[in-house]
Amino acid sequence: MNYTKCWLDYQPILEEKKKSCYCHPVLMAEGVVAKTAGEEYCIAMSEMLGEPVDLLYDIIEEPSVCLEVVEDMETDATNDALAKQSFKIHQEEDSIIISGKSAEALLQGVFTFLRMVALDQIDEKMPYTCTPVMPLRMMNHWDDMDGSIERGYSGRSFFYDDYEILYNERTEMYARMMASIGTNAIVINNVNVHEKETYLITDVYLQQVKQYTDLFAKYGIKLFMSVNFAAPMELGDIPVSDPLNPDVIQWWEKAVKHVYEVIPNFGGFLVKADSEGRPGPFTYGRTHADGANMLAKALAPHGGIVVWRCFVYNCGQDWRDRKTDRARAAYDHFMELDGTFDDNVILQIKNGPMDFQVREPVSPLFGGLKKTNMMLEVQIAQEYTGQQIDLCYLIPMWKEILAFDTYADDEGTTVEKIVSGQSYGQSVCGMAGVINTGDDENWTGNDLAAANLYGFGRLSMEPSLTAEEIAEEWSKLSLSKEKEVTDVVVPMLCNSWSTYEKYNAPLGIGWMVTPHYHYGPDIDGYEYDRWGTYHRADLHGIGVDRTEAGTGYVTQYNEPWRSIYAKKETCPEELLLFFHYVPYTYVLKTGKTLIQHIYDTHFEGVEEVEEMQKQWTSLNGKISDRAFECVTERLARQLENAKEWRDRVNTYFYRKCGIADEKNRNIYL
Amino acid sequence: MNYTKCWLDYQPILEEKKKSCYCHPVLMAEGVVAKTAGEEYCIAMSEMLGEPVDLLYDIIEEPSVCLEVVEDMETDATNDALAKQSFKIHQEEDSIIISGKSAEALLQGVFTFLRMVALDQIDEKMPYTCTPVMPLRMMNHWDDMDGSIERGYSGRSFFYDDYEILYNERTEMYARMMASIGTNAIVINNVNVHEKETYLITDVYLQQVKQYTDLFAKYGIKLFMSVNFAAPMELGDIPVSDPLNPDVIQWWEKAVKHVYEVIPNFGGFLVKADSEGRPGPFTYGRTHADGANMLAKALAPHGGIVVWRCFVYNCGQDWRDRKTDRARAAYDHFMELDGTFDDNVILQIKNGPMDFQVREPVSPLFGGLKKTNMMLEVQIAQEYTGQQIDLCYLIPMWKEILAFDTYADDEGTTVEKIVSGQSYGQSVCGMAGVINTGDDENWTGNDLAAANLYGFGRLSMEPSLTAEEIAEEWSKLSLSKEKEVTDVVVPMLCNSWSTYEKYNAPLGIGWMVTPHYHYGPDIDGYEYDRWGTYHRADLHGIGVDRTEAGTGYVTQYNEPWRSIYAKKETCPEELLLFFHYVPYTYVLKTGKTLIQHIYDTHFEGVEEVEEMQKQWTSLNGKISDRAFECVTERLARQLENAKEWRDRVNTYFYRKCGIADEKNRNIYL
Repeated sequence: MNYTKCWLDYQPILEEKKKSCYCHPVLMAEGVVAKTAGEEYCIAMSEMLGEPVDLLYDIIEEPSVCLEVVEDMETDATNDALAKQSFKIHQEEDSIIISGKSAEALLQGVFTFLRMVALDQIDEKMPYTCTPVMPLRMMNHWDDMDGSIERGYSGRSFFYDDYEILYNERTEMYARMMASIGTNAIVINNVNVHEKETYLITDVYLQQVKQYTDLFAKYGIKLFMSVNFAAPMELGDIPVSDPLNPDVIQWWEKAVKHVYEVIPNFGGFLVKADSEGRPGPFTYGRTHADGANMLAKALAPHGGIVVWRCFVYNCGQDWRDRKTDRARAAYDHFMELDGTFDDNVILQIKNGPMDFQVREPVSPLFGGLKKTNMMLEVQIAQEYTGQQIDLCYLIPMWKEILAFDTYADDEGTTVEKIVSGQSYGQSVCGMAGVINTGDDENWTGNDLAAANLYGFGRLSMEPSLTAEEIAEEWSKLSLSKEKEVTDVVVPMLCNSWSTYEKYNAPLGIGWMVTPHYHYGPDIDGYEYDRWGTYHRADLHGIGVDRTEAGTGYVTQYNEPWRSIYAKKETCPEELLLFFHYVPYTYVLKTGKTLIQHIYDTHFEGVEEVEEMQKQWTSLNGKISDRAFECVTERLARQLENAKEWRDRVNTYFYRKCGIADEKNRNIYL
Repeated sequence: MNYTKCWLDYQPILEEKKKSCYCHPVLMAEGVVAKTAGEEYCIAMSEMLGEPVDLLYDIIEEPSVCLEVVEDMETDATNDALAKQSFKIHQEEDSIIISGKSAEALLQGVFTFLRMVALDQIDEKMPYTCTPVMPLRMMNHWDDMDGSIERGYSGRSFFYDDYEILYNERTEMYARMMASIGTNAIVINNVNVHEKETYLITDVYLQQVKQYTDLFAKYGIKLFMSVNFAAPMELGDIPVSDPLNPDVIQWWEKAVKHVYEVIPNFGGFLVKADSEGRPGPFTYGRTHADGANMLAKALAPHGGIVVWRCFVYNCGQDWRDRKTDRARAAYDHFMELDGTFDDNVILQIKNGPMDFQVREPVSPLFGGLKKTNMMLEVQIAQEYTGQQIDLCYLIPMWKEILAFDTYADDEGTTVEKIVSGQSYGQSVCGMAGVINTGDDENWTGNDLAAANLYGFGRLSMEPSLTAEEIAEEWSKLSLSKEKEVTDVVVPMLCNSWSTYEKYNAPLGIGWMVTPHYHYGPDIDGYEYDRWGTYHRADLHGIGVDRTEAGTGYVTQYNEPWRSIYAKKETCPEELLLFFHYVPYTYVLKTGKTLIQHIYDTHFEGVEEVEEMQKQWTSLNGKISDRAFECVTERLARQLENAKEWRDRVNTYFYRKCGIADEKNRNIYL
């Protein structure tokens, strides 16, 4: 087997923790998903009990674990879509009942129960009821059919190789892993749909795609595909892709109809249109609502949905232009369309207004749109956050985003409430993550990067979990249940974002990375380029004025944020340079000048990585050698990277302002 | 025909310029090269006379043009290799005699005569005698077998496509063009020898390569190949490529022997070793002399030579390190080996110590080595000089280099004298140019870039030609003989290097280009990278201290250069920042401060491109539409590029030093 089982690598439990019912699972429901629930139970429990566990289909006279579907189960769900996903785990005498309001919910109940057993939380947590918070919990693969993965840092695609679709045991393991963390939707190809991938929705590939849909269906997961908005032109003989053109409409209707003929349980489309060179409705003077609704209408009769990305901006900006602001783009494009999208359209909105930087404000679109289905898009793949070489546990970031109060409907309208459907009563919404997997043995390049994948799933089920709780769960399931391991790994994970941020671009300014590759520092790399990503540093200071006097971006926020961000004094300092041009001598709340803060954090970042290395070294022999060595090697590279960031950032600013480090540390000339 | 004939596109001459002898060529010599001379005469003269001209083999009773080989012809050549290349054109009564000391010399005489006729210089220049100045006049192709060209800006390779060797009418036209400008050696593959190209010297490709050698032989040109120093490992079963290992030596002897069995007139090898990731003798603790001599000994029995590149430096430098200096590398590596190379080894030395920047000092190796065969390497392909989008006529640069007095043996030891063999009596030496051709219709992307190719050949034959003379010849032969065309084109060409330099990196500092692509500005693009290419700009000034107090590079020069370069006051100002770190407020000889000079030249550069555009527009209808439109389009792109350079450079320095432009022009913030 050339792949690990990650958090599904069940280990034997202590003898005294074994309950007699565990070895008697009884499946009281029918259908493929219920069958999967039974199978997952047996696989896991056999490992944990150290003896074969067989599935029964009738209760006999002994304590058992009963797996059942109870369609009229009570639930606290706020809508039907979520209600069907509720499950319950409770004890009746010596037996345990795992019941789901649907087979999919039962499967989630079984995974949850197994996790509780593995983590020794049974007595503490039962009775346990759960309704997932996010209706859709979606993975976006940026896999291309040549076998490469855009922004992939874990090897090659396990879906494709050389324009062939793969299907093997690894794919099955993948489906199990996804289901175990609550995933219920997967997009199997890159949002940048190239020539060959355009054919995925045609007979060239549909039968092979069906293998995936069938597999995913067993695990309660719907398969989606990214489509090329120009497909009618590239695949049909239609000279345009105008969404209001009857031929185009008909082409899509026919294409979608055929997809559903082959794959009746198909989920729908993900679309990146009019973005970074992708075709879209703008070409024909149409709106994004025109484009999305056209596809939505083709999908609606079959129950399919359209996920439409809001990552639309001018990627041909002139660096000389200080008025155009990429941060404004999503809001400027989509706010005026609020209420015009069909019910089966979701807008997928990146967490921040730029592009997955280590620190960004929350996208103002979340606080703007009120009559539109929304999905929060985060990037599990660490494109700008260390590329799975550097450790950067992203759950704390995502929790901050979910907890961000948009003040859209007074206080308390958090992003979590908006994208979970609680604020506006929507059921077609949720969270999407750009996944970080590949065909590396450990799936995610760096073993510790799997915590982000695991955490994304867990968070989308239960956002109330803390980052520490998720880290601990993951560490115990994946590395070791020993406290001395958890005591090292959990703080390492939970502090890693802060460490990464320290040696990266300062105070929210972002983008000081090597162009294209996005790993390692290049302070001016994007400064004179066309991507709208500028820091505007000169000899006096640095930062982008996004107040009303500047680009006006702050006005996209509801009060009180608009006012809070508008003033240097009230702006959260981690975002200071995102919103303001600030002199190097400006004094921060810590009493330090901006320049001294830059120097200090960059020295600290390196020191913290060195400390991480020390901590990690203490795990030698306490976890698998493979995982230990993998992370050891990554940490060594991270230290090199952190030093390079420290020295280049410090030298860059020292050369620019000439202000010496107060502590006289080594800043290269 | 999908290619032009460039300067071989002979046009009809005026009736009154026709001499009666022209239509009676008589070939008095035998062999393939002599035959070619006759053929070339007939092709050209048919076009120029407007009637078929047939070759005769006997003098009959009328005025004729006699083509003959006179082995005992007198010559002023300083060595035998050159003597054999002497030719003479003179009149005897109404007949003209073109005589060469060899068939190859005769062919050169014919091309020269035809050019004189085309340029209407017959009466003015006859009698004409010529001994080429450079014994070897070599083209280096950086073509890869996949069909791409490293640093190629004129389309794809016409030698290879998808690992197949091409051979067609274009290849024949190419050979004619090369011979017509005096080329006598061609390396047909990239110095970076990749996997498949390693097989070029084996039976996998040798028969196909033979097609080229046979073709080139007809034109008096020897074919060379770049070889992979690690070939014994990659092609043989030898675990090393140690040049002193008997198995390795034997492998090469056998390989070379076989090459000569298939291709008896093979020229030899070009080698890039221990450079930018290429394998070499350093791997085994051997010297470059060990490596080159090993190959030389394998080639010597067959009359072959080894051209060994001196482009050896540490491409993994730490930008923090201010002592290591890439500029020193070639001298540091090769000086101590002077006198240890075999007679059939040539060191091929780039013109400057860095890498074909728009302005560099002349490599100190030319003034250092005295007992080693040397070849001057220049880059006809405009990698750093505008990529055949921007106009940059390089003959003035090359003339400066050839005229540079190294003071190796007192005053007057110019680079020209050294690489032509005059200084030390060598005959295996000369000039090599990295060629700028591809399969674009006009061969060189920009029509005007062909002037560099033409000029390289002419200069290596007759370095005493002025840049203006060469420009005029080329323009008349390629575009139009009309004075109003020449009056525009010649100044455009001759001023273009100066214009390009103005909007590029200032005063010899170089390298402010987009990494990897090398087109367009990126001021800090290489500043924190590993390539040893730094400008060290800070808020006070810019430049690299290469004096004895700095990297010590100046000490590689003979006096008086060592002293001249060592002081800001005496250092030629176009090289000021190459040798010195200079404050922005330093006053130049013009009375301007350094910063004002930077601003002024960058505004001027753009203005001069605008003026070039105007000039070029005046040629509409006076030259071929194809050429007119090609250059018009290139000039528009050049203007964009010049503006981008102007604005980025000016903004970069303004942001860094805060000193305003005295003339209050627009510098973006």
